[in-house]
Amino acid sequence: MRFMRAIAPVLLASTLVSVPIESQTPVQGTSGPPLENPRRPAEITRELEQVRDAALASDYAYRQLRHLSNNIGPRLAGSLQAQFAAEYVGAEMRRLGLEVTLEKVKVPHWVRGLETGALTEYAGQAPGTSQKIVLTALGGSAGTPAEGITADVVVVRNFAELEALGRAGVAGKIVFFDVPFDKRMTAQNEPGPAYGEVVAYRGRGAKAAEALGAVAALVRSAGGAEYRLPHTGAMQPAGIPAAAVAAEDAELMSDLASQGRVRFHLVLTCQTLPDAESANVIADLKGSEHPEQVVIVSGHLDSWDLGTGAIDDGAGVAIAMATAAIFKQLGIQPRRTLRVIAWMDEEHQQSGSKTYARDHAAEFANHAAAIESDFGAGHPLGFYAHASPEALALLQPVQEVLRATGARLLLPAQSSPGTDIAPLDSARVPTFGPIQDGRTYFDYHHTAADTFDKVDPHTLSENVAAIAVLAAALAEMPEPLPR
Amino acid sequence: MRFMRAIAPVLLASTLVSVPIESQTPVQGTSGPPLENPRRPAEITRELEQVRDAALASDYAYRQLRHLSNNIGPRLAGSLQAQFAAEYVGAEMRRLGLEVTLEKVKVPHWVRGLETGALTEYAGQAPGTSQKIVLTALGGSAGTPAEGITADVVVVRNFAELEALGRAGVAGKIVFFDVPFDKRMTAQNEPGPAYGEVVAYRGRGAKAAEALGAVAALVRSAGGAEYRLPHTGAMQPAGIPAAAVAAEDAELMSDLASQGRVRFHLVLTCQTLPDAESANVIADLKGSEHPEQVVIVSGHLDSWDLGTGAIDDGAGVAIAMATAAIFKQLGIQPRRTLRVIAWMDEEHQQSGSKTYARDHAAEFANHAAAIESDFGAGHPLGFYAHASPEALALLQPVQEVLRATGARLLLPAQSSPGTDIAPLDSARVPTFGPIQDGRTYFDYHHTAADTFDKVDPHTLSENVAAIAVLAAALAEMPEPLPR
Repeated sequence: MRFMRAIAPVLLASTLVSVPIESQTPVQGTSGPPLENPRRPAEITRELEQVRDAALASDYAYRQLRHLSNNIGPRLAGSLQAQFAAEYVGAEMRRLGLEVTLEKVKVPHWVRGLETGALTEYAGQAPGTSQKIVLTALGGSAGTPAEGITADVVVVRNFAELEALGRAGVAGKIVFFDVPFDKRMTAQNEPGPAYGEVVAYRGRGAKAAEALGAVAALVRSAGGAEYRLPHTGAMQPAGIPAAAVAAEDAELMSDLASQGRVRFHLVLTCQTLPDAESANVIADLKGSEHPEQVVIVSGHLDSWDLGTGAIDDGAGVAIAMATAAIFKQLGIQPRRTLRVIAWMDEEHQQSGSKTYARDHAAEFANHAAAIESDFGAGHPLGFYAHASPEALALLQPVQEVLRATGARLLLPAQSSPGTDIAPLDSARVPTFGPIQDGRTYFDYHHTAADTFDKVDPHTLSENVAAIAVLAAALAEMPEPLPR
Repeated sequence: MRFMRAIAPVLLASTLVSVPIESQTPVQGTSGPPLENPRRPAEITRELEQVRDAALASDYAYRQLRHLSNNIGPRLAGSLQAQFAAEYVGAEMRRLGLEVTLEKVKVPHWVRGLETGALTEYAGQAPGTSQKIVLTALGGSAGTPAEGITADVVVVRNFAELEALGRAGVAGKIVFFDVPFDKRMTAQNEPGPAYGEVVAYRGRGAKAAEALGAVAALVRSAGGAEYRLPHTGAMQPAGIPAAAVAAEDAELMSDLASQGRVRFHLVLTCQTLPDAESANVIADLKGSEHPEQVVIVSGHLDSWDLGTGAIDDGAGVAIAMATAAIFKQLGIQPRRTLRVIAWMDEEHQQSGSKTYARDHAAEFANHAAAIESDFGAGHPLGFYAHASPEALALLQPVQEVLRATGARLLLPAQSSPGTDIAPLDSARVPTFGPIQDGRTYFDYHHTAADTFDKVDPHTLSENVAAIAVLAAALAEMPEPLPR
């Protein structure tokens, strides 16, 4: 990337964040390699704007997301589709001219089977009938016998109620954790209390119920919409079957349980198969001066199996791929290496990021920064960043260029803004994640309705613009961001 | 109903609709039986207000709807639940003191079975995989063999495209009618172009495709939300299987079909069993002066089988039941008979209303009016009425009393505002249906998400208020409305 060299002085000078960019005088030779082609800040801004505008005009990400979602489909770790998708992304990045490696990852291989739920006894029941309960197995759940299990339901609102019931109240029963998701809490990439609180039951509920002798665990779906959609997701390993019921079915079960005995018939024929071989896709656009220094742009390629993984997280992968495509389109070869990563198995056991951390630990000192997008493709407002104040101050030009797209925020985060880049974050690599409009994210998250039509092409391209501009700056600064 | 007698003069005088109600002088003795207890219009208004306020304060309808939806559940004509629901409604009306008959109706008995769809060949497919298509059989559909059928998909946007393809383009294929529902068109009880246009394909699509040799027909769901929800509904009898796919799956299929060949595997094990015996519930609160004259308040008790039939149309039945409950609570015995009807089989073949029309045709001259609520329980704005201008003018006091609830409109309709009361309408009985806020109605209509939680208790009680006030006026006027 030739023209981007000139960003260096500004990025250095802008440690004085309150000084308007136009008034700053380039500071030359204070650190880093000699500047080959110093330019005025206004010129540099125009150059970053070129990246931004090319991204906004490109439909590359949208076409890639369409292919991943519609042509390949769901990409659960361990599945044929996930592996095929890794090969597809690798081939596409090679086609763009990147150096591509599919780095092997051993992934869990859990497969969903039949899943049905029915209330077989309850107050006011029409004789000879039962009522269907819409549910879906949690990822990694144990199965029931093929004929299913039938047991009384006991409803609890929190872990304290479960403990209060004790073994006497729980043994032999199906525990239903009816903990509603607070829809008002869904906002910009900050699931916060609503998701965090509810997901605790999805994660630990089955294990806690099993410890008191329960035969199965049900949780109310962690989701913000009521369209009889169950939301799957990962759970901690447990020996009993576990499923999420749709919000409507949670309401029904709690209502009927308040009126008397409720018996439940549960069939889940899901299975855990031997671990499978899969891969992280690593695609490098090698740096011109510091190829050993790496700036990561990434999303996770695996998805849950119910939908086609468009917002979670085909979009993140498509955005990362498009960053490379925009660089190539503009003839940019940055100072340090731009590394596109399509992570495998974020959803279930994070085996992809763990494997990367194990295999690349020695190189982490040379990882200059890592970006992951994993919250869909809503309008971006800027970035969460887990980096030092000095590092953030250096990024003011990025903020200025992204102001025109409404993505100028740079908010300090307390931890890694992305799951897959958390091991890098732990090694003190500066980490970034877009701040996205997530008002509808939890309506679709981990459901059958996470499909391509949920992504707006314009806001997707806004995300590409934000990440490509940030990546360009990070890859081109004369020195890596201070840690 | 003692106090309601006094409404008579106002209802007569108010043929001058532009005259404010307070300034009207009661006109006595101009027609009808002698007035026992003439009162000033302001008093009459206060009395109708009592009906309205008792309805607004009552949770009777909400409790009934909860029982129908949650305790009994889906009520497809011919099912055990539908019959049990009829017995339940009959018993409940008897408990209130009404004279109840379960009038036998022979109903179709169609049962849903397994239903799965999968794309087995398409562009860019991961080898060895297929993609799930979310669908649901249309009511009355033929089944496939147990192992299903597999055929190429041909996509058409309208009947003209189907005809243009002809037998050569259609024979042996699965025809997919991809006709999107225009969400902007969903409003107050006026499905209008959006629903009307789309539902033509649900109704006639299979028959038209069959005529050209198709092996199955698929339609895009007639619905306003995208949550991977298929919408069922009635279809004209055809010899080939027919199903509705969710909006997302329609998008996916059309996208893949635009890229190349698409093969589809369809399994529908639905069956049509011999006709079953069921019933309309007829519950009379006998009139004190003209028991032979009947004012009907009604909804339909049957529902589709996917959800629990809360908005379609448990709500309508609960509103009708509550009208009787409010009359009883206030000690009202009106001049003519208030007849609560819970119709059977509105959804599939309207056998309930046809049977009623056959059995009661001789009495239609004495049917003073008929109300049906069958558009959920959103905030009511008033009524659609298929009646003469003179008749509407007589109802001004109803409008005045309902003004405080926002339900004062009385809009002339061109035809019956309700399906089950259409035979009465054809016999020139004045017919009425509430104008309801239906902005979300088609999100849930005929889906698994038509459940109790979709009904707001306050707007449900507003509907009871509107219908109870109208029914009270209609049952108490000295003369039936002019036809």
